[in-house]
Amino acid sequence: MHIAHLGFSLLLLFLSVGVAAKNDTLDAAASDPKNLGLMQGFPPPPDKLVTQPDSNFFSFPKLRWTVCHFRELLPTEQVSRGIGAPVPLEYNLNEAAIDALTFTPMGSSETMTWEQSLAANYTDGMLIIHQGKIVYERYSGCLNETGKHGAMSMTKSMTGLLAEILVVEGKLDDNALVSSIVPELADSAFGSATVRQVMDMTTGLAYSEDYSDPDADIWIYSRAASPLPKPPGYKGPDGYFEYLQTVKPEGNHGDAFHYKTINTDALGWIISRVSGLEVTELLSERIWRRMGAEQDAYITVDGKGTPFAGGGLSAGLRDLGRIGLLMLNEGEINGQRLFPSKVVANIREGGSKNAFAKAGYTTLEGGSYRSMWWLLHNEHGAYAARGVHGQTIFVDPKADMVIVRFASYPTAKNEKIDPTSLPAYQAVAEYLMLD
Amino acid sequence: MHIAHLGFSLLLLFLSVGVAAKNDTLDAAASDPKNLGLMQGFPPPPDKLVTQPDSNFFSFPKLRWTVCHFRELLPTEQVSRGIGAPVPLEYNLNEAAIDALTFTPMGSSETMTWEQSLAANYTDGMLIIHQGKIVYERYSGCLNETGKHGAMSMTKSMTGLLAEILVVEGKLDDNALVSSIVPELADSAFGSATVRQVMDMTTGLAYSEDYSDPDADIWIYSRAASPLPKPPGYKGPDGYFEYLQTVKPEGNHGDAFHYKTINTDALGWIISRVSGLEVTELLSERIWRRMGAEQDAYITVDGKGTPFAGGGLSAGLRDLGRIGLLMLNEGEINGQRLFPSKVVANIREGGSKNAFAKAGYTTLEGGSYRSMWWLLHNEHGAYAARGVHGQTIFVDPKADMVIVRFASYPTAKNEKIDPTSLPAYQAVAEYLMLD
Repeated sequence: MHIAHLGFSLLLLFLSVGVAAKNDTLDAAASDPKNLGLMQGFPPPPDKLVTQPDSNFFSFPKLRWTVCHFRELLPTEQVSRGIGAPVPLEYNLNEAAIDALTFTPMGSSETMTWEQSLAANYTDGMLIIHQGKIVYERYSGCLNETGKHGAMSMTKSMTGLLAEILVVEGKLDDNALVSSIVPELADSAFGSATVRQVMDMTTGLAYSEDYSDPDADIWIYSRAASPLPKPPGYKGPDGYFEYLQTVKPEGNHGDAFHYKTINTDALGWIISRVSGLEVTELLSERIWRRMGAEQDAYITVDGKGTPFAGGGLSAGLRDLGRIGLLMLNEGEINGQRLFPSKVVANIREGGSKNAFAKAGYTTLEGGSYRSMWWLLHNEHGAYAARGVHGQTIFVDPKADMVIVRFASYPTAKNEKIDPTSLPAYQAVAEYLMLD
Repeated sequence: MHIAHLGFSLLLLFLSVGVAAKNDTLDAAASDPKNLGLMQGFPPPPDKLVTQPDSNFFSFPKLRWTVCHFRELLPTEQVSRGIGAPVPLEYNLNEAAIDALTFTPMGSSETMTWEQSLAANYTDGMLIIHQGKIVYERYSGCLNETGKHGAMSMTKSMTGLLAEILVVEGKLDDNALVSSIVPELADSAFGSATVRQVMDMTTGLAYSEDYSDPDADIWIYSRAASPLPKPPGYKGPDGYFEYLQTVKPEGNHGDAFHYKTINTDALGWIISRVSGLEVTELLSERIWRRMGAEQDAYITVDGKGTPFAGGGLSAGLRDLGRIGLLMLNEGEINGQRLFPSKVVANIREGGSKNAFAKAGYTTLEGGSYRSMWWLLHNEHGAYAARGVHGQTIFVDPKADMVIVRFASYPTAKNEKIDPTSLPAYQAVAEYLMLD
C-alpha cells in the first residue's frame, strides 16, 4: 500500500492534477508552512510531520513545505556549481513601484495589484530582472535566498535546452530516429519518432492518465519511477529507462502537441547516450558551473540513480534568474558565451502552432512548444519554462526582462494560475519599458 | 525482507563491522569503482548497479562507489555554505618528498612508503596542511575535488564540537542531567546521565550488537532509523528520537568509555533542543557558512527528517581541511574567530584515560575520548575525528599539521587501518617539522 501512496505523491510532482482549491482553501498567509508549524520542533508533533510517503507530502497545504525540501524526502543527485566564486547579480531595486502596478486578471472585470497577485498565487519566490539588474526580489513561504525550490516541469526546459545545445553543436541530429540513438527504445513508440518530435512533444504515445484505472499507464510509470524498493512480487518496469521501453504508440508522430512528461525522460536518455553524461552532470558542465551560480542545484533520481529529467530539479531563485538571463542574452552571461546564439534562436522560432492548438490550452492560445519551452508568440516575443503549482521562468525579450517565480499554489493546473500571472507579467513589462 | 536489508546497510555506515578483508580481496586499483564500471552507462548493466537496498550498497567493493554517493541512495538535508565566495586555501605543495617518506607500520618489521600507504588504505582523498598551507592533495577512487565523501563517524566530532561550543558559550550545561533538557528521555537510560557523560560516551546503556539475534538492539535501532516506509504491522520506534527513548540502562554512567553511536544521536537531540536548530542548521550557521567553505555538505535523515548526528555527514575534502584548521588554530580561520579558544582547549584536555582504557583499543593505547574527538595524548598532542573504513581528520598541534583522509577500506574496523596510518602521520609530522 505504501508504494501506491508514493506513486501518487510522485506523479503529483509533474502532472496537472492535484487537490482542487475550494472556497475554504487556506490562503497564502494561513498556509505558510511557518504559520502551520510544519516540521517544527524536535521532534515535530505528529500532525506537523511531513513524511514520505504516508502523509501526502505533495498535497496542499503540506506541499507548501515540501516544495523547498524534496531532498529530505527523496534521493537526489547534485548539479554542481563547481567551487569558484559566484558572480553576484547587480541590483537596481524598484519594488514599491512594481508592487503598486495594477492589471486585470484574465476573465475578470476587477483589477488587482502586483503585490496582491503574489499572495493570490501562493508565491514563494519572485525575481524580476530588467536590463540585466534585479529590480524586484521577494521570498515567502518555505523559501529564502539560500534555499532551493522545486522547479517541477521547468526541469523539462533545462533538458530541452541541453538537447538544443547538442543539436546546434552538431552532436545530436534532431532529424534522426530515436531508435538510431537509443536502440533499447526501438520497439517502443519512441523508436519511430524523431528526436525533434520528442523535443517538441509531438510524439504519438499511448499513455493514459485515468486515475480510477489501476492499470493506467500513469500508475505503471509512477511505480517504475519510485526510488523506494519494489514490493515483493513486483514484475513491472524498474526505473525511467525500463518504463520508456514499454510505451506503445497511439496516433501518428508529428500530428499534435501532447504534453507528456515521458517525452522528457526519453530526451534525457538521448542526451545522456550522446554526451556520455548524466543529465545532472551535463547540466552542471554546460550551464551550472559556467554561469556564476551561487548554489548547487539537484535532481531527484529513481531507484537506479537515473535523474528525473522531466521534473526533478530544485534550485535557488537567483540561479534560475541566471538561466533566464542566459536565454534573454542568447547564450551569454557575465560577458561569457556558454552556447551559440542559434540555440535560443531555434527555441524562439517556436514549434507548430497548429499542433499546439489541438491541445486546447485556453490561457496560451496562439502559442507553441519548442525544445521543452513554451512560446507565447505575443508582441514581446515572450517565452517561458513552466511547472505545476505556478513555477515559471518568463523571458520577455522586447522588455529586456526576466521573471522567475516559485510558487506552491494549491492546485497543480497552470490554467488556474495564469489568469493572475500572465497579465501581471505583461503589466510589469510595459512599466519597465517606460524607462 | 527489504527493510531488513536496508537495516543492515544502514548500520554498516557507522559500526565497526563489515566484510572481512581476505587475502583475495581486490586491491585499491582493482576495486576502483571506475575500473569496476560501477554505475556507468545509460543504464548501467545490472551487475554494475548500486541500488538501495537490494544490492548491498555498503559492502566492499560497491561501498567504494557508495561513499561518494550517499545522497543518491538516501534522503538528505543540506548543510549550507551560504552564497558568498569561498576563501581558497593556500598551497605550498611538496608531494614528491612526502610520497617518498618511509615508516614502519605497527606490528610490522618492514617499512612502507607514504605513497604505498595510500593504496594500502584504499584512500579516496588525502589532504595535508602544514603551517596553514596545503602541502599534499590527492584524489582517487570515487572522489574528486568537487565531490563529497561520507565522513562516517567523523560526523560525531562535528556534533561534539557544536555541543562544546554551546557549553563554552554557557548555553548548554554539561553537568546537567539529560532529562532536564530533553524530558522525553527521562525514562530512558539517557535521562540519568549528564550531558558530559553523553558527550564523552561514558554512559551506561544497554545496547546489544549481536547480529545473530534478530531482537538485538542494533536491529531495532536500524529499523527505526531507516528512511524507508515501515512495513505493514511495524510496531517499533520510528526515527532516532523515538528509538532513543527506549534505551535501557546497563552498568553505571561514568565508569567506562563505551563507543555507542546512539550517544551522538542523543547529543544531537540535546543541541537541537537547546539551540532551536536542526544539527544541519546549527552546523551551517556556526561553522559551514563562516569558514569559507567551498561546498555545501549534507547529512542523511530518518523517515521524519531528523539528521543522523552520529554518522550521516558527507563533505568535500578541503572543507574538512578547513575544519582541521579551525581546530588547530583554536577557533580561528581566515583571520576570523568562529568560537572561543576554550572550546578546543576543553577538547584537547581529553576525557578519562582510565575510562578509555577499559574499552581496549589496541591501536590507541593511552588515549581518551572527549566531546566526540579521539585524543592520542602523544608528544605532539595529536587528536582526531575518526570514522569507519578509514576516515580521519588528524590534528597535530606540535607539527602545525592537519591531515584529512577519506577512504573506503574493505573492512570497517580502524584497528586494521591504523597500523599503516598512525605511524605514517607521525612520519609526515616529523618530516614537516624539519622545515
